Order: sequence, then C-alpha cells, then structure tokens
Amino acid sequence: MARTGIPDIVIGRLPLYLRSLIRLQQGGAIFTSSYELGQMLGISSAQIRKDLSLFGEFGKQGTGYNISSLTAELRRILHTDHEWPVALIGVGDLGRALAHYGGFVNRSFRITHLFDNDPAKIGQHIDGLEVLSVDLIEKTIKTANIKVAMLATPIDEAQAVADTLVRAGVEAILNYAPTVLLVPENVHVQDIDPVIHLQRMVYYLEPPA
Amino acid sequence: MARTGIPDIVIGRLPLYLRSLIRLQQGGAIFTSSYELGQMLGISSAQIRKDLSLFGEFGKQGTGYNISSLTAELRRILHTDHEWPVALIGVGDLGRALAHYGGFVNRSFRITHLFDNDPAKIGQHIDGLEVLSVDLIEKTIKTANIKVAMLATPIDEAQAVADTLVRAGVEAILNYAPTVLLVPENVHVQDIDPVIHLQRMVYYLEPPA
Repeated sequence: MARTGIPDIVIGRLPLYLRSLIRLQQGGAIFTSSYELGQMLGISSAQIRKDLSLFGEFGKQGTGYNISSLTAELRRILHTDHEWPVALIGVGDLGRALAHYGGFVNRSFRITHLFDNDPAKIGQHIDGLEVLSVDLIEKTIKTANIKVAMLATPIDEAQAVADTLVRAGVEAILNYAPTVLLVPENVHVQDIDPVIHLQRMVYYLEPPA
Repeated sequence: MARTGIPDIVIGRLPLYLRSLIRLQQGGAIFTSSYELGQMLGISSAQIRKDLSLFGEFGKQGTGYNISSLTAELRRILHTDHEWPVALIGVGDLGRALAHYGGFVNRSFRITHLFDNDPAKIGQHIDGLEVLSVDLIEKTIKTANIKVAMLATPIDEAQAVADTLVRAGVEAILNYAPTVLLVPENVHVQDIDPVIHLQRMVYYLEPPA
C-alpha cells in the first residue's frame, strides 16, 4: 500500500504528538489542546491543528482533544496499533544496548532476531535471543516476514548488510552507522546521528573561549 | 548570549543542511542548489531558501550555493566552527559504544570526560580516557568549563545525574535514557529516541497480517 499525499515532514511529527499524548495520559490527563502539545514540543499550535486536520476532525472547540481517542487514531494512522518484529544486526556494545533498551516496551516494536558476523558472538544468548550468523539473515528474515531492521554494525560493513536486508524484503532500516546507506526507493532509512542533535543545541550556547 | 528570533524548528534543520553539504563536498561538488539539497533531505527547496535567507544572502541566481562558503557560514552560525568538549555519563554498553563512535570525528565534538557510578568501572580506561566517579562530576565539569554532556545512564538514575550536570553548569544534554528530563529553561535537552524514527517509517509500510 503506497501512502502518498501527506508530506513526509508531517508524518515525522506524528510520532512526537503520540509520545506527548502518552506522557500526558500517564500523568492522568483526559483532554489536551494544540496549545499544550505545542508548548511540550516547541511547535506552533496552528501547525499541530493543520497537521492533524489532514487526517480528520479530531478536536472539539472548547474541550480540545480527547487524549485517549487521539492516541488510538494516531496509532492507527502510523500503523503502530500492533507490534512489529524487528531484526537487529550487530551485537557489539551498541547492539547490546539496543537489545536491552527499555524504550521499545509497549511502543509497537520488539526485537525478535539478532545477527552478527563474529564467531565468538554467534550462538550467544542476549535476553533469551540467540545471536545468529549474518549468513542466515536473508533466509531467516524472509521466512519470518520481517520488514523492520536496526543496523548497528561497524561503518565498513553497513552497506553490505543493508543490501542483504533489502534482498530479504526489509523495507525500513534504522541506521546507527555514521554513513549514508544506498537503498532502493521503496526502502525507508532513518539515521540516528547524535551530532545533529548536539549541533542543534550548541547554537544556543556561548562558544567556548 | 541569548539567541532568539529564529524559530527553533529552523535551527533544527541547519545541521541537516550542513551534513548534506559536507557529503556533497566529499563527493567533489563545488556548488549546489536548494533543489539538490531538498532532494537529499525531503524538504522543499522553497523552505530551504527561506530558512537560509534568515541568516543572510548566500546563494546566487544561476550558480546556486558555493558549498565551501555555505558550509563555513553554517558552522559559524551553529557554533560548530570549533571543538566542544563533551562529558559522557554512564559507560555501560551504550556509553562504551558512544565513546568509540566514529561519527564525532571532525564534527566539532570530542568526548573528554567519562563518568560512571559502578566501582568496577571507575578507574578503567576507554580509548585513553579514565572513567571517573560520578561523585566528581560537579567539580570536574566546573573546572573544565564543559557545557555539553551525553547521558547514557539507566532510566532510574537519569534525572539525578541531569540535576548534577545542571549544577555543574552544563547547558546542553543529549539524553539517551527513555525518560523526560526536567531541567531549567536555560538548559537544552535533546532526546535520542529510536522509536520515533521507527514509527515514522512504518507509516509507509503495509501492516503485518
């Protein structure tokens, strides 16, 4: 199913809205407003109303958004109203950290397969999952029909692994390697790049002497 | 120096422009256009021209942007035209991965101090840096005049460490713990949240059966 017509930049904001709504809900709130969400996110309330209006009529003048129903709607729109199995490639320090990461719990993703090319790591168990050889990526991922992968290999292995993932049918790659992955147009890549976030912050700081 | 007047959302795009320019430069290009940058980033060329025009007159009709001078300008604007020392708190799996991360090199940030609260880790050396006790955070960071920190502790220690960092004078925290940090208004926090990126991608995917 090709989903078009909504700018990707808008899609990029929906997970932020969802996360804020869940935080408000955890704090016991029932309703919220585009103003409150905007304050939490540093986005104008007009932008939030405009973004949400692309998907339907959610808020009510005066009472604002019902958090529980807007959360359910956003989950449905984002396809996060069920759990996606995820393959993790590379169980070095970073891969291990991701395998243990608490932030995936109840947020629609679960690491189900681990792969590495290091004979010393293959066969080990991490949180109950066996580390498989990268030679098994294609067959295993095809059989399990996995569409989402996280890539935590060294930089010089990243592209070859990405190629294998694409052959296996993966359509979404979260890339931790500091390199540009070349993939076909139907495959989505997002880079985790801490420097982007650091640069954004030091804009506001007095430069060191 | 308070920097105001430019929307934060625009500031958030400048590091993306900078990264794309450096990639073009590494590929041997001399000039680029808002169209080419837009294609690389999924942002409209009109938006890019508008963002850059807030800082001055950079492009020339017909020839576009000189990559080398626009890169220098963006570095100056972002305060990344010199190196920022960075303190890393927490040297578990994730912290170790960050300490070894190749993506910081030549991108204006250098990890200069490591801290942990685990007696087994304190005193260890990682890439030539000694792991110091968290008890030394405040004194050490004040003395070294460090303003930027990365927080890679377990979730239940994150807020207390953030409080200590703020007391030590840190003004920018890159937070890897999946929790909301409460900090004073003058302190900037960016969260590394892989789920946000995963959710953004699966919007485009056919949901699993």
